[in-house]
Amino acid sequence: MTQVVALSGGIGGAKLALGLQHILPPGELTVAVNTGDDFEHLGLSISPDIDTVLYTLAGLANPELSWGRAGDSWNFMAEIERLGGENWYRLGDKDLALHIERTRRLNAGEKLTGITADFARHFGVLGRVVPMSNDLVRTMVITDEGTLDFQHYFVERRCEPVVKGFAYAGAADARLPAQLQEDLQDPSLQAIVICPSNPWLSIAPILEIPAWREALLEVTAPVIAVSPLVNGQAVKGPITKIMSELQLELSSASIARFYEGIIDGFVIDKSEAHVAPEIAVATHVTGTPMKTPVDKQRLAREVLEFARSFGKL
Amino acid sequence: MTQVVALSGGIGGAKLALGLQHILPPGELTVAVNTGDDFEHLGLSISPDIDTVLYTLAGLANPELSWGRAGDSWNFMAEIERLGGENWYRLGDKDLALHIERTRRLNAGEKLTGITADFARHFGVLGRVVPMSNDLVRTMVITDEGTLDFQHYFVERRCEPVVKGFAYAGAADARLPAQLQEDLQDPSLQAIVICPSNPWLSIAPILEIPAWREALLEVTAPVIAVSPLVNGQAVKGPITKIMSELQLELSSASIARFYEGIIDGFVIDKSEAHVAPEIAVATHVTGTPMKTPVDKQRLAREVLEFARSFGKL
Repeated sequence: MTQVVALSGGIGGAKLALGLQHILPPGELTVAVNTGDDFEHLGLSISPDIDTVLYTLAGLANPELSWGRAGDSWNFMAEIERLGGENWYRLGDKDLALHIERTRRLNAGEKLTGITADFARHFGVLGRVVPMSNDLVRTMVITDEGTLDFQHYFVERRCEPVVKGFAYAGAADARLPAQLQEDLQDPSLQAIVICPSNPWLSIAPILEIPAWREALLEVTAPVIAVSPLVNGQAVKGPITKIMSELQLELSSASIARFYEGIIDGFVIDKSEAHVAPEIAVATHVTGTPMKTPVDKQRLAREVLEFARSFGKL
Repeated sequence: MTQVVALSGGIGGAKLALGLQHILPPGELTVAVNTGDDFEHLGLSISPDIDTVLYTLAGLANPELSWGRAGDSWNFMAEIERLGGENWYRLGDKDLALHIERTRRLNAGEKLTGITADFARHFGVLGRVVPMSNDLVRTMVITDEGTLDFQHYFVERRCEPVVKGFAYAGAADARLPAQLQEDLQDPSLQAIVICPSNPWLSIAPILEIPAWREALLEVTAPVIAVSPLVNGQAVKGPITKIMSELQLELSSASIARFYEGIIDGFVIDKSEAHVAPEIAVATHVTGTPMKTPVDKQRLAREVLEFARSFGKL
C-alpha cells in the first residue's frame, strides 16, 4: 500500500520526506531518489542523495552539514591526505561503511534498489527509499569552462563555473525500477510529491527518464511540487545562481514553469505569494522553511491535504 | 646501494626490520615482505604484512595489537556491523586509507611494488619496502576441516583447525619484482636476513617462488635466519601450535631444519642454546626478544656482525 511517492534530491527534499514519513503509516511512503549525482570516488560507488535521504529518514544525518553522518570522525580522510590521495570530496569514517558495502555489493552484481532497501532496513527507516533507476544516469553540467561531471562542478569547483545548461547522460535509456512501477500504479496512491529539491540538479534527472515522465503523466493521483525558493532565495545550494545564469526570473514562478505539464498543484512560500498569479496550476501558499520537526510535519500534512483537494481519486 | 635484504612477515619480522632500519644508512635496507596473506575483504585489497611493516617502520604501528595503526578509531567498523556486513576482520578508520588507496590503484593497473613504495615515501619510511612479488600468491592452510584461505584460518577461525600442511597457490608462477632482483644482485649486499617470522606462514610463501629460491641459492652474501622461538615458544602467533600439529620438535632446531640448504647462519635465543648442537649451520646465540628499541637495534647489529663473520665478500 503506497499512499505517497515523493521525488527527492538531497537535503531539501529529504526534509520534506522526513515530514511525510512522520505522518504516514509505516511502509506507505516511497521516496524515489535522484541518482544523477552518483559517482565513483577513490574507487567507491557514492550515491550522495540516497545517503542523505537514508541518514535523514533514520535520524542519523549531520545537523550542521547538508550531507554525511551526525558525529562522524575524519581519521580516514586525514590518512588519505597523508597518502597523497584525493581529498576534495570528504568521506567520514562512519559514512564510509555505506560506500564500501554498496561498492562491494554492486561489484558482486546486486542492484542498487536491493542494496538501498537493505541499508534502509538496517537503519530502521520506516519509509521505502528507492533509487530513481538501477541504470546509470549522470548529470553533466555544461559551463563556460566546458562540461563538468556533477560532483566536480558541485563540490570540487563549488559551483563557481557559469552554467549554460545540463545533460543527463544515460537518462534516455534508463528504466524505472519494478518497485517504483508498482508504487506508481498502486490504486491506493494519493499523491506524488516533488520535494523542494533543485529542479535542474535533482529532479530533472528523474524527469529525463522517459518511463518516469510517462508514469507521471499517466498517474491518476495528483502531482504536487513544492518550490525550494523562499523570498527569491534557496534555503541551501546554488539554485538561484544557476537560475540567474540560465536567465530565469528568481522566483517560484520559474520553478512552476519548469514543472509545467507534469504537476497538478504547486506549493510556494508566503514570501513568494506575489508570483502566484503567474503560476498556471493551482497553488497553495504556506510557510515552506522546515527548521523544526513540527515545520516538516506541518508542511507534509498541508501538501497531502492540498493533494486531496484535487479529488482525482 | 643495498646492504641488507630482509625477508619478513608481519609483526615479529617487522621488529627486526625496524632495528635494521635504525642502524643502516637510509636506503640501504630493503624489506621483502610476504604477500601470501593478502586477501580481498569487503571488496578491498588487503596486504596485512606489508601494512604491518610499513606502520612499524614509520613508527605508526599499534603498540597493543600486532597489527593496525596506533590510536586508530573504529567508527567504520561499527557501521559495517550495523549494515550487516562482515566484521570478523577489523579495519580501523585510519588503516582503511591504505586499503582503499591500494585497491583503487591496483584496479587502475598499478603494480603493488609501486603503490607500496609510494606509501612508504608518504609515511617517511627510510628503508625500502617491497612485496615479495607483484603476482598473486595465496597461502592456503590444509586442516582437518578442509583447506582454508589463510585469513579465514588465522583470523576468523583463530588458528583453531588442526594443520596438516600448507599450499602456496600461485607461487610456482610468481616472479621476483625487478627491484628485488637488482637488490639481490647488488655487489654491495652484505647480508640476507630472514627475520623471526613464522617460517610456514610468512617465509615459506617467499621460498616457494622459484626465482626467490634460486636467487637465495646464488647470492654471494650470507643468508642468516633468526629463530622466532624463545624457550620453545613463539613470542606471538601460532607457530608452536602448528609445529605440534606437524609433529615437529618444539625448538629452534626444527626451524633451522626448515631453512636447511638456504641459510648460511642461524641466530637463536639463549634459552634455546641447548639445541645448538643439532643445528647444521653456524649458529649465533644471543637474546632475541625485541621489547625495546635498544633490543631491536642490538639484535640487528649482532645479526649483521654475524653475517660479516662469514667473510664471503
